[in-house]
Amino acid sequence: MTDASVDPVAAVTPDEVAEALARLRATTPLVQSLTNIVVAQWTANVLLAAGAAPAMVDNPHEAEAFARVAGGVLVNTGTPYDDTTAAMRAAVTGAQAAGTPWVLDPVAAGGLAWRTGVAVSLMDLHAPTIVRGNASEIAGLLGGLGGRGVDSADSPEEVLDRARELATSRRTVVAVSGAVDHLTDGERLVRVHNGDPVMTKVTGVGCALGALMAGFAAVCDDALLAATSATGLLTVAAERAARAARGPGSFAVALLDELSLVTPDELASGLVLS
Amino acid sequence: MTDASVDPVAAVTPDEVAEALARLRATTPLVQSLTNIVVAQWTANVLLAAGAAPAMVDNPHEAEAFARVAGGVLVNTGTPYDDTTAAMRAAVTGAQAAGTPWVLDPVAAGGLAWRTGVAVSLMDLHAPTIVRGNASEIAGLLGGLGGRGVDSADSPEEVLDRARELATSRRTVVAVSGAVDHLTDGERLVRVHNGDPVMTKVTGVGCALGALMAGFAAVCDDALLAATSATGLLTVAAERAARAARGPGSFAVALLDELSLVTPDELASGLVLS
Amino acid sequence: MTDASVDPVAAVTPDEVAEALARLRATTPLVQSLTNIVVAQWTANVLLAAGAAPAMVDNPHEAEAFARVAGGVLVNTGTPYDDTTAAMRAAVTGAQAAGTPWVLDPVAAGGLAWRTGVAVSLMDLHAPTIVRGNASEIAGLLGGLGGRGVDSADSPEEVLDRARELATSRRTVVAVSGAVDHLTDGERLVRVHNGDPVMTKVTGVGCALGALMAGFAAVCDDALLAATSATGLLTVAAERAARAARGPGSFAVALLDELSLVTPDELASGLVLS
Repeated sequence: MTDASVDPVAAVTPDEVAEALARLRATTPLVQSLTNIVVAQWTANVLLAAGAAPAMVDNPHEAEAFARVAGGVLVNTGTPYDDTTAAMRAAVTGAQAAGTPWVLDPVAAGGLAWRTGVAVSLMDLHAPTIVRGNASEIAGLLGGLGGRGVDSADSPEEVLDRARELATSRRTVVAVSGAVDHLTDGERLVRVHNGDPVMTKVTGVGCALGALMAGFAAVCDDALLAATSATGLLTVAAERAARAARGPGSFAVALLDELSLVTPDELASGLVLS
Repeated sequence: MTDASVDPVAAVTPDEVAEALARLRATTPLVQSLTNIVVAQWTANVLLAAGAAPAMVDNPHEAEAFARVAGGVLVNTGTPYDDTTAAMRAAVTGAQAAGTPWVLDPVAAGGLAWRTGVAVSLMDLHAPTIVRGNASEIAGLLGGLGGRGVDSADSPEEVLDRARELATSRRTVVAVSGAVDHLTDGERLVRVHNGDPVMTKVTGVGCALGALMAGFAAVCDDALLAATSATGLLTVAAERAARAARGPGSFAVALLDELSLVTPDELASGLVLS
Repeated sequence: MTDASVDPVAAVTPDEVAEALARLRATTPLVQSLTNIVVAQWTANVLLAAGAAPAMVDNPHEAEAFARVAGGVLVNTGTPYDDTTAAMRAAVTGAQAAGTPWVLDPVAAGGLAWRTGVAVSLMDLHAPTIVRGNASEIAGLLGGLGGRGVDSADSPEEVLDRARELATSRRTVVAVSGAVDHLTDGERLVRVHNGDPVMTKVTGVGCALGALMAGFAAVCDDALLAATSATGLLTVAAERAARAARGPGSFAVALLDELSLVTPDELASGLVLS
């Protein structure tokens, strides 16, 4: 894995992202979200605003069957309980059986032992299409560094080698969120330079990003394109929302508006990739 | 059940709806909501804005006793778990014992097997005062058609015969949400022509409607009037909110404002029933 | 406990509150919140807006270990289940072991038997740093008066003697929310005269206050100062938010904005204590 193998310009282009958004809105993929009690409403609203269809099926009785018909599955370990983690295993099993793409958002991995084990065991069950987290969570999945709950003590740049290692060993795309998002499939690397600091002042922005990735994975064969499209849509919409916002409350409201208003062309022209 | 038996003008009038809203605000009924993790906050805020008092008592230890003192009970199967479904059974038992009206919102019935069984078993335990759902959910309760999660693949018009059948066989009011809401007690039919398409871009608008019905059922002896009043209040407020909204985020905020601002007179004059 | 022992001016000053807010923002304490499904998102957003870092770790596997590293712990009994109440006991045990301050918000205590027992058993396990509730909840913890869910049928003034009794017997600070908030450690009394009636039209404003108290307890040795600072920040921000709000929806959005915008100086000058 040398720098020579990385060609960021070729990896994903803004036009490909714009086309992915158009496909998302044309097909309204069903995104099964097994997420946490903090962000469930917000996640559903982000998916609806962007153009996808949320379905929060997170009980052990129904999660497997639903994952077979969903367009994409999100598993987020923000507030795991015994019954919802059983549902997560069922959903991943269903996703594997039907070839449904699934996204792992290992909230607080590394910082909390039990859920780290849950997240790793889900990856062992069936490789996720995309793993999305902040730097300390990605490092935490590999057993290194400590976390501070959902905060990220490290930067994406610092854990890039580990992200590549995780992507290669698990045959997945790893998306590390931060001031500059770093996304890699082990070979290729995409950096997304959009976004605004106020995104860290609203709970669940990262969690919603994971859900958007599951939505885009339903309409993109290339998981790196799916992860980049979700990141691009969210961060470009966030920049637009931040302009008119007075604080985190009005920002969150405007972000939902902008996710529904931004056109594929506007997304392509606003996106800064490297 | 012939068309001759339907007299929509006589069934419910805008003035009766206005009076029901005035009663709701004067008495602030306590609405016990056993709902899902996605919409719990939103549901409570809708009830507060409209003038009711939410109480989210959804554990098996307390649900029965609370249903005996509540003004109305909502049971929503959006994210059912083993313990919360036990609480639902307890709440319905308490509602039956005390004569408390209760509303069933069978989210994703028909599309998902386990929860469909939960919803049917609750109806078997004690007939709901009102059943509220979209077209595919109502059809799903009768064992027909399939659903796509919370989406509705059918229109209220298409399932009207089934809605009447359900209302008659269960001795309940069935409220089918859609572009034109159809509400029936098996004999009478009310169509509510208000609303705005952006309502489908915010999660939990339908769920909140079920909660409002439980609130109005606490202050209306006629369940069809209760269901119509809730539908009228929500859809008229939504029309007002949609006028100033840029997208789904600002719409949801404005909807809470309008639910608290709309007067009984404004409701009566804005409402279009047939 | 005579009136002569109460010196409200000396108890807490606006300048001390301003300094506490500056410390909170400088140190961003980690607040472990074991709260309810209704207000989890709102609580996290209030903490973020104010300057703290929320972590909703509420499962039995991780709650104890996390309470040992958190800056403060909130336990809120709004929607208790068997597994989350087990987590509450674990968190309190961890808080005791590590000396982490913890806040009890006994939602609906007195009105509902099971959760009242849960709340009392948590106090028995380890005295909370602060108990926050409305008047009927505080009375309910002592076995008196009845409640009506989360509504408060009594005023803080009416239960002041009971609040002092609870504070003295449990060696805690008791914060009674109402039109005028009353806070006491059994000896000292602080009254906070800020706020706006619209605060009662948004769910979870009181619950968020409990979370803010846990945040301030992490940066204040004096629990009465912590409770006063949280109450002052929330109510002063609420006054500012209410000015521009059309209704409860826009108020809630503006409240998050104002929590992030209000400076320590503005807080000190707006605060009315007695």
